[in-house]
Amino acid sequence: MTKNVPALLAGLLICLPSVLAQQHPLLGFPDSAAAIQTRWEAQFDQQLSAAHIGANIKELSAYPHHLGAARDKAVAENIAQQFKSYGWEVQTETYQVLFSTPRTRTLELVGVPGYHASLKEPALPEDATSGQEGQLPTYNCWSADGDVTGPLVYVNYGLPEDYEWLDRIGVSVKGKIVIARYGRAWRGIKPKVAQEHGAIGCLIYSDPHDDGYFQGDVYPKGPYKNEYGVQRGSVMDFVVYPGDPLTPGIGATADAKRLDRSKAPNLLKMPVLPISYHDAQPLLAALQGPVAPATWRGGLPITYHIGGQGASVHLTLAFDWGLKPAYDVIATFKGARYPDEWVVRGNHHDAWINGASDPVTGLSAMLEEAQAIGALARQGYRPARTLVYCAWDGEEQGLLGSTEWVETHAAALQKKAVAYINTDNNGRGFLEAAGSHALQPLVNEVSRGVTDPETHVSLWERARAAKLVHADNTKAKKELLDASTLTIDALGSGSDYSPFLQHTGVPSLNLGFGGEDGGGEYHSIYDSYDDFMRFKDPTFAYQRALAQVAGRIVLRLAGAVTLPFDFRTLHKTISNYLDDLVAATEAQRTNTAIENKLIRSGQYDLASDPQNATKAPLLRAEVPFVDFSPLQNALVALQLAADTIAARQAAGAASPAFNEGLYRAEQQLLTSEGLPKRTWYKHTIYAPGYYTGYGVKTLPGVREAIEQRQWKEAADQVVVAATAVNKLATYLREVANK
Amino acid sequence: MTKNVPALLAGLLICLPSVLAQQHPLLGFPDSAAAIQTRWEAQFDQQLSAAHIGANIKELSAYPHHLGAARDKAVAENIAQQFKSYGWEVQTETYQVLFSTPRTRTLELVGVPGYHASLKEPALPEDATSGQEGQLPTYNCWSADGDVTGPLVYVNYGLPEDYEWLDRIGVSVKGKIVIARYGRAWRGIKPKVAQEHGAIGCLIYSDPHDDGYFQGDVYPKGPYKNEYGVQRGSVMDFVVYPGDPLTPGIGATADAKRLDRSKAPNLLKMPVLPISYHDAQPLLAALQGPVAPATWRGGLPITYHIGGQGASVHLTLAFDWGLKPAYDVIATFKGARYPDEWVVRGNHHDAWINGASDPVTGLSAMLEEAQAIGALARQGYRPARTLVYCAWDGEEQGLLGSTEWVETHAAALQKKAVAYINTDNNGRGFLEAAGSHALQPLVNEVSRGVTDPETHVSLWERARAAKLVHADNTKAKKELLDASTLTIDALGSGSDYSPFLQHTGVPSLNLGFGGEDGGGEYHSIYDSYDDFMRFKDPTFAYQRALAQVAGRIVLRLAGAVTLPFDFRTLHKTISNYLDDLVAATEAQRTNTAIENKLIRSGQYDLASDPQNATKAPLLRAEVPFVDFSPLQNALVALQLAADTIAARQAAGAASPAFNEGLYRAEQQLLTSEGLPKRTWYKHTIYAPGYYTGYGVKTLPGVREAIEQRQWKEAADQVVVAATAVNKLATYLREVANK
Repeated sequence: MTKNVPALLAGLLICLPSVLAQQHPLLGFPDSAAAIQTRWEAQFDQQLSAAHIGANIKELSAYPHHLGAARDKAVAENIAQQFKSYGWEVQTETYQVLFSTPRTRTLELVGVPGYHASLKEPALPEDATSGQEGQLPTYNCWSADGDVTGPLVYVNYGLPEDYEWLDRIGVSVKGKIVIARYGRAWRGIKPKVAQEHGAIGCLIYSDPHDDGYFQGDVYPKGPYKNEYGVQRGSVMDFVVYPGDPLTPGIGATADAKRLDRSKAPNLLKMPVLPISYHDAQPLLAALQGPVAPATWRGGLPITYHIGGQGASVHLTLAFDWGLKPAYDVIATFKGARYPDEWVVRGNHHDAWINGASDPVTGLSAMLEEAQAIGALARQGYRPARTLVYCAWDGEEQGLLGSTEWVETHAAALQKKAVAYINTDNNGRGFLEAAGSHALQPLVNEVSRGVTDPETHVSLWERARAAKLVHADNTKAKKELLDASTLTIDALGSGSDYSPFLQHTGVPSLNLGFGGEDGGGEYHSIYDSYDDFMRFKDPTFAYQRALAQVAGRIVLRLAGAVTLPFDFRTLHKTISNYLDDLVAATEAQRTNTAIENKLIRSGQYDLASDPQNATKAPLLRAEVPFVDFSPLQNALVALQLAADTIAARQAAGAASPAFNEGLYRAEQQLLTSEGLPKRTWYKHTIYAPGYYTGYGVKTLPGVREAIEQRQWKEAADQVVVAATAVNKLATYLREVANK
Repeated sequence: MTKNVPALLAGLLICLPSVLAQQHPLLGFPDSAAAIQTRWEAQFDQQLSAAHIGANIKELSAYPHHLGAARDKAVAENIAQQFKSYGWEVQTETYQVLFSTPRTRTLELVGVPGYHASLKEPALPEDATSGQEGQLPTYNCWSADGDVTGPLVYVNYGLPEDYEWLDRIGVSVKGKIVIARYGRAWRGIKPKVAQEHGAIGCLIYSDPHDDGYFQGDVYPKGPYKNEYGVQRGSVMDFVVYPGDPLTPGIGATADAKRLDRSKAPNLLKMPVLPISYHDAQPLLAALQGPVAPATWRGGLPITYHIGGQGASVHLTLAFDWGLKPAYDVIATFKGARYPDEWVVRGNHHDAWINGASDPVTGLSAMLEEAQAIGALARQGYRPARTLVYCAWDGEEQGLLGSTEWVETHAAALQKKAVAYINTDNNGRGFLEAAGSHALQPLVNEVSRGVTDPETHVSLWERARAAKLVHADNTKAKKELLDASTLTIDALGSGSDYSPFLQHTGVPSLNLGFGGEDGGGEYHSIYDSYDDFMRFKDPTFAYQRALAQVAGRIVLRLAGAVTLPFDFRTLHKTISNYLDDLVAATEAQRTNTAIENKLIRSGQYDLASDPQNATKAPLLRAEVPFVDFSPLQNALVALQLAADTIAARQAAGAASPAFNEGLYRAEQQLLTSEGLPKRTWYKHTIYAPGYYTGYGVKTLPGVREAIEQRQWKEAADQVVVAATAVNKLATYLREVANK
């Protein structure tokens, strides 16, 4: 679909006083250039239509459009057509990726009276698309085929610490089927840890405490998950590597060399199935054995037991496995001055079902940016650098489309990519920004310049207010009040920025609004336009705001005379991470010493109720002192280099080589060997957690070694991180002279 | 019922090596006296029969026996008869106390479909006494009569901070009926605060999260509250004064001058009714309006809304009001050397229904002590001081029996009472001791000398293990590991020690076991012998252990050559309270300043979701600096005086006047004016909280003034507390010379 651009109106706006008032210096722009940039950005805003974004959300979420579906291709074609109509060059790159869809799904509670799980989300009259053909059934993609029967064990969130407790009460999951609740960590961690402990199958259910009536009224009365809602989702072990499981590290082109599926190290060996709380309740109610600890209990009106004997379940899952085409739509707008410097922007287009929120909100905002830029071009705007706008396919299965594209074009990206700006599902409320910390000042600047639709202060002020009000304690509030900048979060995984940032070192950001759009539609048939219009952002004001903020970051990076990377911020951030780690190691040392004392002196045995006996925790090796000095010294070097760069930036008039040096700097933080146990991940500062999934681990090599009490590895990883930081420092010193 | 004492066996035991090994010095006993005392205590242990305690529990809980019931009198007579059979002198003192019992109770949800509450706990085949005649219906004693209809508002736990939140979301309870959940504070606080906010009625229900299936299997499958279980209980505003509402400060003898009931300041003006979660669920499910905040939501399978409009309830309550006889059974065993020095021991005998746990467990342990002492007497034992064992009536309604007795005998108690040792319902697990901190060393000593039935270490070691294992953090664990004594808690209210300690300054202790006997039988028809035998302490081992520890404390105080009061411990404890208060005031100051800054700069308004708007909190006056120095200086004086006393105690051979000085010392901490708003409470260190009920407030005058931001009163109360502490210091300096 296309849109008539109100070009005349837009043209008028350059002389409005409110626009003139915005003429302040911008990071990376000399005053005269800043004035021009500011005028273009004001015109950009004028081209962004909330109504048009809304029309796109409706159209692109009109039918189920998952990877491999006919409607998936149709959506990709629609997007390509839109880009073209806005004046962009478009290319659709197709990869052949593995994908599994369910053929058989049965789950029953064995015995009398038994229970057959419904495994079905019903259509609702209040939701027009909920009864459409072509919906993927409720399942976890990348589950193994399997037909298993065994006693059921409730494992809480299914994390390593949950199994430590099971050990203490003498319950093993070996040869059994576990049932874990969604939440706390990414879903795929649950079957992975269960498999590590010898389980033969895994159910994951949405507990109403975490995702249901405990949170608020359920769909369709309210936005929260009703008793039949199920969260689909990938359980690929993407913390080893994301993308097509058969082509790690290389693009899944038609002729790529592929692994045998049974050899893919990020695929599970056992069956996994997500279920609703309607289906979970009879299973959990049938469990006997010890009562679950208080923190394990959810919101069902039952007493939560651990099980492990008595109640058994029978789970049968079979899948169709095969290669499917993934369509990445790549639109480019050539830079006038530095065509070989790319500002990359992306959002996926595939959905689990209709995906009105996930991903169509962010996708429609991105398309609106492209529309507006096209309109600007017709008024004479030319970006200095090339814009590359990408709509990814197969994100839901494990970032397939983006990962294959990045792996295919890695060399070009490492040469040309200035930054990657990602969005995904977008809600209502407060700007949430995360990513490369050298870009933190830019994010602060841009968010100070965009108005919040609800309160009419800047996005920055509103985000700060939320942080202030919700800070844990007075000390944190005081620090926030005193700070002049808002920090951005670090990126773990969960969307398409991961291959850019963590595999190739392209500076990346992820942007979105949230905090006021709670709901339970995620990855269900109820992530629909009707749901969006009733409970999300029915005026599309925050979709437009996302296009404003993401678009401005793109335009700023595309036009900057000196690229606004600030390595002092990066230095400070890494230093804070290290300080945290040093303190955490110290706390771990004290805690281990005290706990060992308690265990050795029998305190746990004395405190245990003999009628509900709990074993003492296992003794742990005392925590040695770790040599953090290589990293501390490297950070001193980085600080000096960062100051040198900043001085050079302040002096103005950057050379092309200097700018290239800036945007390629983050690559220096990669380690060619990759992280322990997962060589695909090469960034020494940011990675998804091996046992948290989406959740980030900063200084991951060091932190995870310490958390897993691998002291030798911790010391080695300090050196790896220090080497990377030193490499960056040396590199920046050289760049400063360019 | 009586018991044949195995006197011969007991006689043999004095020469056993294990007894000889226990001959160590005891606090307050020269070596020779300690050896004799230790032998008597060993014999005392031999006389304690778990089986006999169990038989008493069965017999005394065989029928409903609430205040005013025929079975209440029968139980009192049974107890009197037991004491007599053990060789004690017995007197039953009768008071005429006000008591209300329900005539009419109806509760309905108005409208279609509506709901009529059942207000009934059903009899269960698994519980032999649950269907007996003579049970009091489910009600809150001291509710006003009333017939009210109004919109229902859910107020969480019904505490002042809950109403602050209601203000912020614009919900008033004025002219409405509130529904609060049990928990967090004593039940009577809920209607009191509701009434302060203009409500016209109050329902209190047991939420399954706090008291039901969330905790564990429900009765009769498990011990926790089933859907029909209801917690009865008093809602007298006892934090103003306990005891008979018509005779504050004086004994409720037949001819006492009585207030008009409408003038009694501790009685509510509005109707209050406790209900089950079965009855609460339809009411709560009918509520509309804002969704309750996350911390307000309980364990019912519904979305918790605030209500306030729409759903209304109609509540009708009418009571029979009249004077009823309360029978206090007072048994004495005359001291051989100091007959006018009394060691007082007490436990109530009245129950809400059968009361197998509450109060019959502690009562039966106390009777067993009396039995054992009687047996010892037949072997020649004579306590130096007089023992006064008391079985109180009317505790459940608000400490009626004990308060009236204390008020009647206040002068004698202040002259003669060495200490008061209280017990009440007793469970299984860990020794929990609380009370006057000058007795903390004695509690430590005694608990080191009694063996835990389950683990066979000392009670002290086991209690320490539980504290170590469950401490919040490593720092707390480290401090506990380093400490050589266990601290005892301070006493608020909730049992019969209150009039002794807080009205008359008699040094008091409260003792019991708990932590392994969770359940929901409290104040319901299911507090039965069957429940006790299945889920509490079916071997009665911890009932015997209670008799051991309470009995030894009694015997130790009765026989001590120098009374084992340690005012250094008291000094240290008060100093810690003051340090806490100073730190809390400092934190309140910082917090108020920051919050006011956030409010003034509009952060709360910016952070609020306009679709679910929340007003900013109200600005509060900045916290001034409070002059704590009078109390700090007084504590210096107390420390010196306490050291002087300790030196004198160490020197041995106390005079009678010195001992009398020691046991009457705690009275110096009383203030004749009483606490602000509640003159009955005279202790400047310990009181129940005005807005917590049972929960203690230490340095209550100062602490509550600060919490309620009454700065002038805080400064005044510092002086009041300082005066009391100075009075004690001066007094102790004089005592040291006696």
